[in-house]
Amino acid sequence: MLYIVGFGPGGYETMTVEAVRALEDSDLIVGYTTYVDLIRPWFPEKEFLATAMKQEKERCLLAIQKEEDGRKVALVCSGDSGIYGMASLVYELAARDEALMKRIRVIPGVTAAASGGALLGAPLSHDFLTVSLSDLLTPLEVIKKRIRCAAQSDTVICIYNPSSRKRGDYLRRACEIALEYLSPDTVCGYVKNIGREGEEAAVLTLEELRDTQVDMFTTVFIGNSHTRNIHGKMVTPRGYRLEEEAAAAQERT
Amino acid sequence: MLYIVGFGPGGYETMTVEAVRALEDSDLIVGYTTYVDLIRPWFPEKEFLATAMKQEKERCLLAIQKEEDGRKVALVCSGDSGIYGMASLVYELAARDEALMKRIRVIPGVTAAASGGALLGAPLSHDFLTVSLSDLLTPLEVIKKRIRCAAQSDTVICIYNPSSRKRGDYLRRACEIALEYLSPDTVCGYVKNIGREGEEAAVLTLEELRDTQVDMFTTVFIGNSHTRNIHGKMVTPRGYRLEEEAAAAQERT
Repeated sequence: MLYIVGFGPGGYETMTVEAVRALEDSDLIVGYTTYVDLIRPWFPEKEFLATAMKQEKERCLLAIQKEEDGRKVALVCSGDSGIYGMASLVYELAARDEALMKRIRVIPGVTAAASGGALLGAPLSHDFLTVSLSDLLTPLEVIKKRIRCAAQSDTVICIYNPSSRKRGDYLRRACEIALEYLSPDTVCGYVKNIGREGEEAAVLTLEELRDTQVDMFTTVFIGNSHTRNIHGKMVTPRGYRLEEEAAAAQERT
Repeated sequence: MLYIVGFGPGGYETMTVEAVRALEDSDLIVGYTTYVDLIRPWFPEKEFLATAMKQEKERCLLAIQKEEDGRKVALVCSGDSGIYGMASLVYELAARDEALMKRIRVIPGVTAAASGGALLGAPLSHDFLTVSLSDLLTPLEVIKKRIRCAAQSDTVICIYNPSSRKRGDYLRRACEIALEYLSPDTVCGYVKNIGREGEEAAVLTLEELRDTQVDMFTTVFIGNSHTRNIHGKMVTPRGYRLEEEAAAAQERT
């Protein structure tokens, strides 16, 4: 059995009960060094194997190989195992063996869009685009086109991997695209180190966000034209019609 | 204290540890009838209050009122409490009282994009749009524009509320928009009753999806041009560059 476990933002209590049980049921836990270090204290009796950053393929192959050796393996991912997680890569690597495919079980988790959103308020109560600014594996033109399309259609945008050492100005560039369609006052937010030491959340305007430097452990939210700042919380209404009706009623009075 | 708890797709084990603790800590649990019935057996000692469908505002006001009466209240939402959940409405209704705002705690959960994705394979490993087809509170033109923009920019689409009695043909119409930009063979999937009785997952083409009737308890996934069907699993690669390189290498041989 190969579990691909999304363990959420990073605290034991933000894991699902199912994720806890899968990790308890495994005899080997495989993951990226930082995540393995995070999880180790909660499951002290388990064996752990860590691989470095950018070793995604090696990590998945290692997990598959150990499973084929007859062990119960959990491959851990932060957030959800399917959203920018390892699940797709494992399936691609397992495609050669249908029997192996059937021994894979994807265990979902709370993705950063949800955990970061909860800290900020409720920015994603309506339609949103989730987009990664990492162009390591995706052409930058594709990423820019998606941001443009979302801004054009007034869709809230949730940004994963907004920055890195080599991509220090990518968030600025994303904000500049959004500013072609949205007001500089559009309500935005970001959350750093969700559920971990150094957790930090801020609600600010799109113009301010453009001039903010964030790191790769940050999730960024760009609101739409309906998003409000309510006493420091970033809130996108669930539907827009009620709001329009309320505004129309107000005009009539 | 007013907890707004996302309890995930519907099983006890797909709740987070934090959600379980919040419900245990509450003395009153408020929610939509169906969800209250789902949760009641896990917390038999609690008091429950249920309100009918479409009574969202009344439900939130009830939860707020009980909290102001001095009780510890949990307002439950399926999936994540922030993604098409009650969190934004509660914040809007609490805006009148900053002290009340501070007593609200949003507890995120596993949203249907993640739980449905896990059952189908890994459809959301890369950028995606989450869109609701319910036009009760949002003009249909806005919804159609968002779908068009996502299809144009080759973004995977995850559809919430794809159908209802009055909107039986909305999924067909969404697929028709997508078909203007995507091949009829585009890999799609849907999941019904995630984590509950009657759970059902299917991987099919966009053309087949167009002619499929789904209900309101279904989450639908429209792949992008890179999404593959691997032994019945819907898999979107994490990045596209490797894939292009592999194809280019193959052409050279």
